[in-house]
Amino acid sequence: MVDRVRIHEVSLRDGLQNEPDVVPTDVKLAHLEHLLASGFRDIEVTSFVRPRWIPQLADAAEVARSLPRVEGARFWALVPNPVGLDRALDAEIGHICTFLSASETHNKKNVNRTVAESMAGLRKVITTARSEGLTVRSYISTVFGCPYEGDIDPQRSLDLALELLELGATEIALGDTVGAAYPTQVRTILELLAAQGVPVEKTAVHFHDTRGTGLLNAWTAWEHGIRTFDGSVGGIGGCPYAPGAAGNVAAEDLVYLFQRSGIPSGIDLDGACAAAQFMEGVLGRRLPGRYLHNWQGQRQRGSRAARSA
Amino acid sequence: MVDRVRIHEVSLRDGLQNEPDVVPTDVKLAHLEHLLASGFRDIEVTSFVRPRWIPQLADAAEVARSLPRVEGARFWALVPNPVGLDRALDAEIGHICTFLSASETHNKKNVNRTVAESMAGLRKVITTARSEGLTVRSYISTVFGCPYEGDIDPQRSLDLALELLELGATEIALGDTVGAAYPTQVRTILELLAAQGVPVEKTAVHFHDTRGTGLLNAWTAWEHGIRTFDGSVGGIGGCPYAPGAAGNVAAEDLVYLFQRSGIPSGIDLDGACAAAQFMEGVLGRRLPGRYLHNWQGQRQRGSRAARSA
Repeated sequence: MVDRVRIHEVSLRDGLQNEPDVVPTDVKLAHLEHLLASGFRDIEVTSFVRPRWIPQLADAAEVARSLPRVEGARFWALVPNPVGLDRALDAEIGHICTFLSASETHNKKNVNRTVAESMAGLRKVITTARSEGLTVRSYISTVFGCPYEGDIDPQRSLDLALELLELGATEIALGDTVGAAYPTQVRTILELLAAQGVPVEKTAVHFHDTRGTGLLNAWTAWEHGIRTFDGSVGGIGGCPYAPGAAGNVAAEDLVYLFQRSGIPSGIDLDGACAAAQFMEGVLGRRLPGRYLHNWQGQRQRGSRAARSA
Repeated sequence: MVDRVRIHEVSLRDGLQNEPDVVPTDVKLAHLEHLLASGFRDIEVTSFVRPRWIPQLADAAEVARSLPRVEGARFWALVPNPVGLDRALDAEIGHICTFLSASETHNKKNVNRTVAESMAGLRKVITTARSEGLTVRSYISTVFGCPYEGDIDPQRSLDLALELLELGATEIALGDTVGAAYPTQVRTILELLAAQGVPVEKTAVHFHDTRGTGLLNAWTAWEHGIRTFDGSVGGIGGCPYAPGAAGNVAAEDLVYLFQRSGIPSGIDLDGACAAAQFMEGVLGRRLPGRYLHNWQGQRQRGSRAARSA
């Protein structure tokens, strides 16, 4: 029996949050329909951060209230603090994501708090969310490297993961925020966590493809028992001001790799590529995903051949 | 002791051969200087195919005669047949590459011969070359998949590799011509070859990144004992008529991955990126390499920061 993998799709949240031009709510919902039609069932749809911080996601409540009912689908929303949780509860979101960083400096720069202060805030968020029956995914950022501190002691990530699980987090998502991970490091960290009480079935990996190693790191994680992988169609999520800087691992690259390897993901590869292509139209630029452009090229050649036949 | 890897750089041959606009010889030689300055020591510089077939490489003899003398450098030229070998010998090339395909259909479409006919021709080429003291690298194409036949029985690649070694080939380069390889397949094929008499130290891998799996396949090969990896700076080598279709694995992506993993390649990462950037200028377009664009983005931010300081 080959294990099935789960792709946690983040284009609407992590993908869009750095995009300067606000995507209209109805376009987001149309994209969501594409994702659902392709078979994605774990979709991170928005973030209940202060609208002032990220205008792109200011329509969080509206998105949440417009979610379709789809058998087996889980819609996730990022929640930064108790106020965000209240908004998420009001909007009847069933699955929330929390975050903090393994790097003190990154955490401070990101939310102007120490890691301990962030954890204290999460205590309240996670406990309340769980008592309300919500599922909680807890991101740990910069696990594989920090732009300020460089490599981070894996023991820090382990301690945070154990504390988050104890608070009630149902999943730990290990974030490679700046795309610095490499295979032997991925192995070392995953082995440490699994050996010290963080179950692989509760561990997800969130790789960015900043330096071209995203898919390699994801595969390395698969070899070490991980079955949940974050990705965004087209690899949306890079910084649009840094042309060419790749974002999240492209979801369709993951789907292709697992499909070619005989491992089911439940996602239709053509559908995932079509969703990525739709977002290329919305954002008005080429997205960094790899498989996508081969797929587009083959379809162009196919339609030329059809016309000339 | 960590093994050292060897990067066999192919931008001037595999990279340029599909480029429609002929790059002037002096520009090729300037690029070669960049490659040498970055530490590349195995460089495939041209091909002695009929000039009519590939006008881009019609200056093969001129390139070969203009090669600088550099301690430890090996300059390679592709040789399709005995006529090509004569031209290579006239030009005093010390290292040649031969090719045939593991797929009958691909071989037929490529050179209008059966694989057996190609092997008969190689018998003469390799024997003569070896008797003249040349080093011979023998490519086997479509080892990991054929555009016409799909997956190819690994036994075919094994038989060809053994025969080429027996003829005197000093290195076997396993080609993923259409970028179809995936990790478990790479492992299966490499294990078969190593177990049946093709020494890993005489085996190189030539991956294309058509579907985003190039670096992953290269790393998988490393884990199975391979120490020689083909790449082209910037990932030159895609089809310029299919925008976005990636070419060879980007050499600087390999250099970055191995460097980050603590494995020396002898190549300067900044230098390799600068060589790739030079070729972006020559070809007038963005190249598909991954690390390159992160490197360019960081340098832009760095110079903006310097100006505003």
